[in-house]
Amino acid sequence: MDSINWRGVFPAVTTKFNGDFSLDFDAMAQHLAFQLDAGVHGIIILGSLGENATLDTAEKLELVRFFVERIQGRVPLVACIAESGTREALQFLVAATHAGADGFMLLPPMRYTGDQRETLEYLRTVGKASQRPVMLYNNPVAYGTDLAPADFASLADVTAFEAIKESAADTRRFPEISRQCGDRYTLLCGVDDLAYECFSLGATGWVAGLVVAFPRETIRLYELMMAARWREARELYTWFLPLLHLDIGPKFVQQIKLVEELHGVGSSRVRAPRLSLEGREADHVRQVYEQAMATHPLL
Amino acid sequence: MDSINWRGVFPAVTTKFNGDFSLDFDAMAQHLAFQLDAGVHGIIILGSLGENATLDTAEKLELVRFFVERIQGRVPLVACIAESGTREALQFLVAATHAGADGFMLLPPMRYTGDQRETLEYLRTVGKASQRPVMLYNNPVAYGTDLAPADFASLADVTAFEAIKESAADTRRFPEISRQCGDRYTLLCGVDDLAYECFSLGATGWVAGLVVAFPRETIRLYELMMAARWREARELYTWFLPLLHLDIGPKFVQQIKLVEELHGVGSSRVRAPRLSLEGREADHVRQVYEQAMATHPLL
Amino acid sequence: MDSINWRGVFPAVTTKFNGDFSLDFDAMAQHLAFQLDAGVHGIIILGSLGENATLDTAEKLELVRFFVERIQGRVPLVACIAESGTREALQFLVAATHAGADGFMLLPPMRYTGDQRETLEYLRTVGKASQRPVMLYNNPVAYGTDLAPADFASLADVTAFEAIKESAADTRRFPEISRQCGDRYTLLCGVDDLAYECFSLGATGWVAGLVVAFPRETIRLYELMMAARWREARELYTWFLPLLHLDIGPKFVQQIKLVEELHGVGSSRVRAPRLSLEGREADHVRQVYEQAMATHPLL
Amino acid sequence: MDSINWRGVFPAVTTKFNGDFSLDFDAMAQHLAFQLDAGVHGIIILGSLGENATLDTAEKLELVRFFVERIQGRVPLVACIAESGTREALQFLVAATHAGADGFMLLPPMRYTGDQRETLEYLRTVGKASQRPVMLYNNPVAYGTDLAPADFASLADVTAFEAIKESAADTRRFPEISRQCGDRYTLLCGVDDLAYECFSLGATGWVAGLVVAFPRETIRLYELMMAARWREARELYTWFLPLLHLDIGPKFVQQIKLVEELHGVGSSRVRAPRLSLEGREADHVRQVYEQAMATHPLL
Repeated sequence: MDSINWRGVFPAVTTKFNGDFSLDFDAMAQHLAFQLDAGVHGIIILGSLGENATLDTAEKLELVRFFVERIQGRVPLVACIAESGTREALQFLVAATHAGADGFMLLPPMRYTGDQRETLEYLRTVGKASQRPVMLYNNPVAYGTDLAPADFASLADVTAFEAIKESAADTRRFPEISRQCGDRYTLLCGVDDLAYECFSLGATGWVAGLVVAFPRETIRLYELMMAARWREARELYTWFLPLLHLDIGPKFVQQIKLVEELHGVGSSRVRAPRLSLEGREADHVRQVYEQAMATHPLL
Repeated sequence: MDSINWRGVFPAVTTKFNGDFSLDFDAMAQHLAFQLDAGVHGIIILGSLGENATLDTAEKLELVRFFVERIQGRVPLVACIAESGTREALQFLVAATHAGADGFMLLPPMRYTGDQRETLEYLRTVGKASQRPVMLYNNPVAYGTDLAPADFASLADVTAFEAIKESAADTRRFPEISRQCGDRYTLLCGVDDLAYECFSLGATGWVAGLVVAFPRETIRLYELMMAARWREARELYTWFLPLLHLDIGPKFVQQIKLVEELHGVGSSRVRAPRLSLEGREADHVRQVYEQAMATHPLL
Repeated sequence: MDSINWRGVFPAVTTKFNGDFSLDFDAMAQHLAFQLDAGVHGIIILGSLGENATLDTAEKLELVRFFVERIQGRVPLVACIAESGTREALQFLVAATHAGADGFMLLPPMRYTGDQRETLEYLRTVGKASQRPVMLYNNPVAYGTDLAPADFASLADVTAFEAIKESAADTRRFPEISRQCGDRYTLLCGVDDLAYECFSLGATGWVAGLVVAFPRETIRLYELMMAARWREARELYTWFLPLLHLDIGPKFVQQIKLVEELHGVGSSRVRAPRLSLEGREADHVRQVYEQAMATHPLL
Repeated sequence: MDSINWRGVFPAVTTKFNGDFSLDFDAMAQHLAFQLDAGVHGIIILGSLGENATLDTAEKLELVRFFVERIQGRVPLVACIAESGTREALQFLVAATHAGADGFMLLPPMRYTGDQRETLEYLRTVGKASQRPVMLYNNPVAYGTDLAPADFASLADVTAFEAIKESAADTRRFPEISRQCGDRYTLLCGVDDLAYECFSLGATGWVAGLVVAFPRETIRLYELMMAARWREARELYTWFLPLLHLDIGPKFVQQIKLVEELHGVGSSRVRAPRLSLEGREADHVRQVYEQAMATHPLL
């Protein structure tokens, strides 16, 4: 199995829709070029930000094939596995591998919050079946199931598990995983507005959200942090922070898609049951965006 | 649209699997007969207890057709709609109606916890498209989204919405819905171990769980409560309560399926990521079951 | 030790303040007469509704002496023990007994949420030291510590513990305590807007809140429920419910005191850090009150 | 008003008890010398770790006088205000100022979780009355009330408020307070096992817990972080972390006092309702302690 270099900035891209809510491949091609030009280190599709829950299996595989074709191996294409059944996860794993995905981002089961035995069994089953590297994704805030540092330690024998995206919004997890697992896993920050502290604690990768509109800024911040130029990083981060907060909360998809639209690199269209922001919620995003543009730093 | 009489006991039946986890139609046929013989007033399939999240669309429709055929109109067959996308919900609605479902039990969207505007829009969209009666199902404990009594009042213009299954585990909801909606909806208890208080507060239907093993006992209790024979009802309820508690908690499916197995009317098999109970958890269910059998009242 | 008859309506009265926030004994005397005239079965002072946390020890004992003197043994005077330290609880127990309290309502420790061992040790220590009957008071919603039915079973050897005020807002607790403890304890409802279901489940006492403004209505409802005249009880309860909801939430003290003021039987004055309601919150209480008065039933 | 230099390590010391649970001044004198010798920058008494809730007013003031006398102005003596009533808070403020306290650490009201209006009014009332500098203390995890960055901004006009102890366990608060309040406040970390990220985000003070047993290690870590010697700091932090985790959870007082006892600088005695740790909980602390000692770094 070829490893993936998980260090770097991995945009979790949005899925772009036409007016009839079918997949808008032109918009996605254009956006992909925008990201690759800025120098991102990988592309993640079908994540929460990609509205995974509203895509059917055929669409998911079509998206894998489309991105694989367009990326042409320049950076790894990582597909998110977020399924409710073990059977469905394994089926998708095989089909997406066949369709060319370079690796996977694996969530615990959707809809059913299992106990530790069930969750680890699920992850282990999928991980052992995988012929591609897998990044484990922990997000108890959004999905209910929590993977503790000790769980990652117990999964260390599964070769495919190379990296961890930690989104528990509890920064303690980073040094604790390091203490319990050494450097067994590459650690990625999964929450935009915790990026600074995550990198200070040893994260070397970033599954990023606002990057979809601001790839140059995200990469610049990443580089400053990796170079331990903390003072400059803090300055850029302080500017970025109100935007990065939009990566949080139940409507982060609508918020980030609105930012993409305001920035001219996407549309605010979301599939139902999500609805586009209105009123005060939309106004808030617009104000944050405009304030950020008005004070944009030279990079 | 033909109304459904939602008064009565509606078992939310389990989905039965063969050793290879394919659908076990023989077991389901046998179990259906067991329920109908006992006099249940309707059958609900594809609910949480039916492991909805691990069934694919083809299986769901196959189950609808199978139950419709077997029930032959003796009681209504109600199919649960628990989908992540509005598109998927509408597709299933149409297909299941075509397959013969008499009505639906409708949950808010899975996986995405929307705000009130999004949730009501979703329910309204599905409800307006339905040519069959719909029971709204509120279960914030399991699914995160909460429908308040005022929400039910605001949905009262959708003709298809005839009934409410209240599973908020907050009995205040019953008198409050009555106060705000009058008798617009038939109210059904959705939590086995709150049945007594729900009926005392005006529920006239029961979407029941332990009924799958104990239909006679459930129906007897129902009849006593409807006849306001509260003292006798309390006595039966007190006996039943330890079993009814098994309808609660993240593993209620595994618990109830184990009771079915112990009672000789089903198997404890569940589809992954769920795993069958082990050790102390299984022992607890066995003890509750045995204690209940040892003290079983004459009916 | 003389037992208390815990069956009946026990108002948890508010503490009344002068304009300078000193104790207003005249107002309390007048209000006490209003309650006794209506036929309440006991009086509880120093509870949450009595703003226990803002009274110093001298004031608490002064209030005990004052109420004892005025009641003259017509009904039991019950003082709430809500202390942060075991030492302080024991000191208050002794002093309040000396001051004439007929019994106590005992909360778990304030400010520190202990584990089961610590909580039971605290209750047991106070209970064993008491020469007066004690009602255990469970309110995890407001105070964090939860007493399960099994905890009450394990405390059954402490003679002083005669009654339980259950305010977990989980009606399951009532039949479950009965199942595990038989009739060892008198069960009292502690949440006004769950009274109907609590009595249907076997409560025979009511530590009531809105009674402070509506004693006749509360007692009438109590009598109907105890006589199993459920249909009439439901009717009265439905009228009462919007008022009873004011017994809930972090501002129930301010809400109930405003109702007292509107009803001419008290003042909305509360001690800081509490502040009297303003704006929409006050308007809501006023609307509920006026609507209730406009539809007041003949008793 | 003389300002306090809030930069540095401020131990929140434990209150030491004799076998009869009276105050053990000898033990406290000895422990104070131990802390001052190690070079701590201030002393905080009467905090949560000081078992504030089990001390009566006379004891609190005796402790203030005792510490003031012994410290002799070498470092500031800060007394925690954690009262349930505004009246009590003001009384204690005046008395403790008179007794010589150099400053205060101010919590929102105990026992009553007010809304924003009530909480800010409380803080403002105490802050305006204070003739000594005050550090605001935010700890929603332990006390329910949460002060948002915007609340600190709105309190900026109260001169006495010089510093913030942030214990929300949400590191986002640090850059967000900085963004909204500039350098108006000195920011102190209030959660031992988040110290590294807090300092990386701009904290310059540390209200520390495990310092009571390990002052040299805490101060060394502090100095490394302030000098931006992050690599060395990370190494020391990694060693320290299992101990620092003991600053978390409902039993952090018992845990830290046991560490003091194991380290020969205190006793595990706590006042009831707290009980000393037993069995597995005590064993866990012992193992953490022994492992830390076995791998203790040269400083």
